[in-house]
Amino acid sequence: VFYHLECHAGEVEEKASDICIEQTVETARQLISDEWIRDTIVARVESIDEARGGGYDVVVCFNPGLVDRNLTGLLNVLYGNSSLKRGISIRDVQFPGSLLSFFKGPRFGIRGLRELTGVHHRPLLAAPLKPLGKSAGELGELCYELAAGGIDIIKDDHGLADHPFCPFRERVDRVMESIERAAGKTGRKALYFPCVMGAHRTMEARISYAKERGAGGILLAPMLTGFDHMRSLAEDDGLGLPLMAHPALMGLFFSSDIHGISHAVVLGRLMRMAGADLVIYPGAGGRFPFTEEECLAIKEALHEPFSGLRPSFPVPAGGLSLPALPGQRALFGDDVVFLMGSNLFAHSESIRESARMFLQAVEEPLQVL
Amino acid sequence: VFYHLECHAGEVEEKASDICIEQTVETARQLISDEWIRDTIVARVESIDEARGGGYDVVVCFNPGLVDRNLTGLLNVLYGNSSLKRGISIRDVQFPGSLLSFFKGPRFGIRGLRELTGVHHRPLLAAPLKPLGKSAGELGELCYELAAGGIDIIKDDHGLADHPFCPFRERVDRVMESIERAAGKTGRKALYFPCVMGAHRTMEARISYAKERGAGGILLAPMLTGFDHMRSLAEDDGLGLPLMAHPALMGLFFSSDIHGISHAVVLGRLMRMAGADLVIYPGAGGRFPFTEEECLAIKEALHEPFSGLRPSFPVPAGGLSLPALPGQRALFGDDVVFLMGSNLFAHSESIRESARMFLQAVEEPLQVL
Repeated sequence: VFYHLECHAGEVEEKASDICIEQTVETARQLISDEWIRDTIVARVESIDEARGGGYDVVVCFNPGLVDRNLTGLLNVLYGNSSLKRGISIRDVQFPGSLLSFFKGPRFGIRGLRELTGVHHRPLLAAPLKPLGKSAGELGELCYELAAGGIDIIKDDHGLADHPFCPFRERVDRVMESIERAAGKTGRKALYFPCVMGAHRTMEARISYAKERGAGGILLAPMLTGFDHMRSLAEDDGLGLPLMAHPALMGLFFSSDIHGISHAVVLGRLMRMAGADLVIYPGAGGRFPFTEEECLAIKEALHEPFSGLRPSFPVPAGGLSLPALPGQRALFGDDVVFLMGSNLFAHSESIRESARMFLQAVEEPLQVL
Repeated sequence: VFYHLECHAGEVEEKASDICIEQTVETARQLISDEWIRDTIVARVESIDEARGGGYDVVVCFNPGLVDRNLTGLLNVLYGNSSLKRGISIRDVQFPGSLLSFFKGPRFGIRGLRELTGVHHRPLLAAPLKPLGKSAGELGELCYELAAGGIDIIKDDHGLADHPFCPFRERVDRVMESIERAAGKTGRKALYFPCVMGAHRTMEARISYAKERGAGGILLAPMLTGFDHMRSLAEDDGLGLPLMAHPALMGLFFSSDIHGISHAVVLGRLMRMAGADLVIYPGAGGRFPFTEEECLAIKEALHEPFSGLRPSFPVPAGGLSLPALPGQRALFGDDVVFLMGSNLFAHSESIRESARMFLQAVEEPLQVL
């Protein structure tokens, strides 16, 4: 684990040593009489180097056997108690194969989603159903326009729940009717990802209903409902639907440069370990402060070889516009899902027409700059 | 919701207005043609004031009907997308009764735990089973010493999982044998809280086993396994055990003064809404950077009247020692659980003797300073 410590030269050795204790035995070294525990359980400082830009880069090695074969245990070992201290952040993690072998990763991944959508040689297009406040019927109509215009993936805005003005089941019914109706016209069936949150029994009931009605996938916010919960859904053969991760509340990891866990680890590697086939995150230049460098690091972490885990689609969003699309495509390449909301709806008088222009923009071959 | 915005005077109105949009409809105001949505769904800025210490205090009112009767939905409405921005934090939240009425809160609370333990007029005492690396049998022996010495609540260290060197079921068996054996000697039965993490099916199986073997409660880390998951356990009549919340990873909320959600809201109000009967958090003066003020604010939020929800026990920990106890008792009063680990084990040659001294220290009437 590559920690970054923000501290003085005189403190860094002790701080590094404290992490080895705090994240494992949580007790003073002198109280550990058992040599096996000192050697096998307590983590070990591998190196300490001055970091460019200040502070120290500290590599700490943990016994991967401490992780209880789940992400809850992993996050706990990486950062459980250290999150409560200051000046400790995680820049990167190298996971040993022995640990990764417990994780099945995305069920579909990029290739599986290309098969499901029948789109093989361009970025996929996604659009949200919004705004919160519209009725199920109104969102159904919006869905029809988007699907008829050629959008591949249509997702609930993550604020949509089971409100009296737009009940979950009624929304799934209306949206799936629109998906079918548009498919009859275009010959291609868009995938609908309803948003599912809440206590686990509530989620189970909603997910069953969505599956039964033919939903194309499920939108989850794993920071709210649990990384391991997403993983158990990805591993559930009875479900067998792609999972899209929303970053709600995940900004807690990225509050500053000296606290939290890096974008590439959380939104990249951990999301793949959690089984996310698609990972939504704020694109650079939109209304969130993610930099181009951070966005690319996440993309790399979702794409690159990672033990046997399938690569996942990055889904940059949060202010994407048609004029910004060529630049974003040059940045992300074609193995990406572009999610456009407000700027798509505002682009022309007709949402279906805007959707067509969105599609046209990605159907042209990628210009290598 | 009492947000704090770190920004210039010229930006504050727009930033405040953005929160109203970002946390609800997520779309530009001019795109919302529906008057009902503008009036009922979009949040409203109630006031903007310069904050002492810099930045701005901004009060934003949300329609409580947007919260989907669960904590996932609540956290999402409060801070879901805003967490991904910078300079936005939540200092306090006033929850309307209509919202709180969906939450049953702690099943036992302070009074219920006093009945279960038979301790009515002093702080309760807790101690952890540690360090990670000990076998189930060794932790069982430690448990016996603690229970025989008079500790009321014995909990797993939160790193204990289901490791080959200390399997969950074997640990529960050994510990419960010690609890029974000590009870035969002292006449009082300590409550054992095993730590349960992981995917939900794993947790369900472990919780059932613990309940069957007579565990006194369950230790959860709700930031890892979900606030709503804890709540559903609290509401589960079939379980009917007290729940203790561990703050692992919860430090993400407290990374700095200008990002996150305040200690009193997260560790106080939200934990009560999640049904935690006991809430562990770092005490001031230990090895974590929580201040006395923050610790007291959490205590107040756990104790004070809060719609019909039962008050919960604050459990300050993380470096408590016998010499520090009188000061902590003066600070917290008697409706508190003191959790002491390493410093208890290091206090004397005999852990049982140290436990007795711990008990003696709180059996003396509280000195009003």
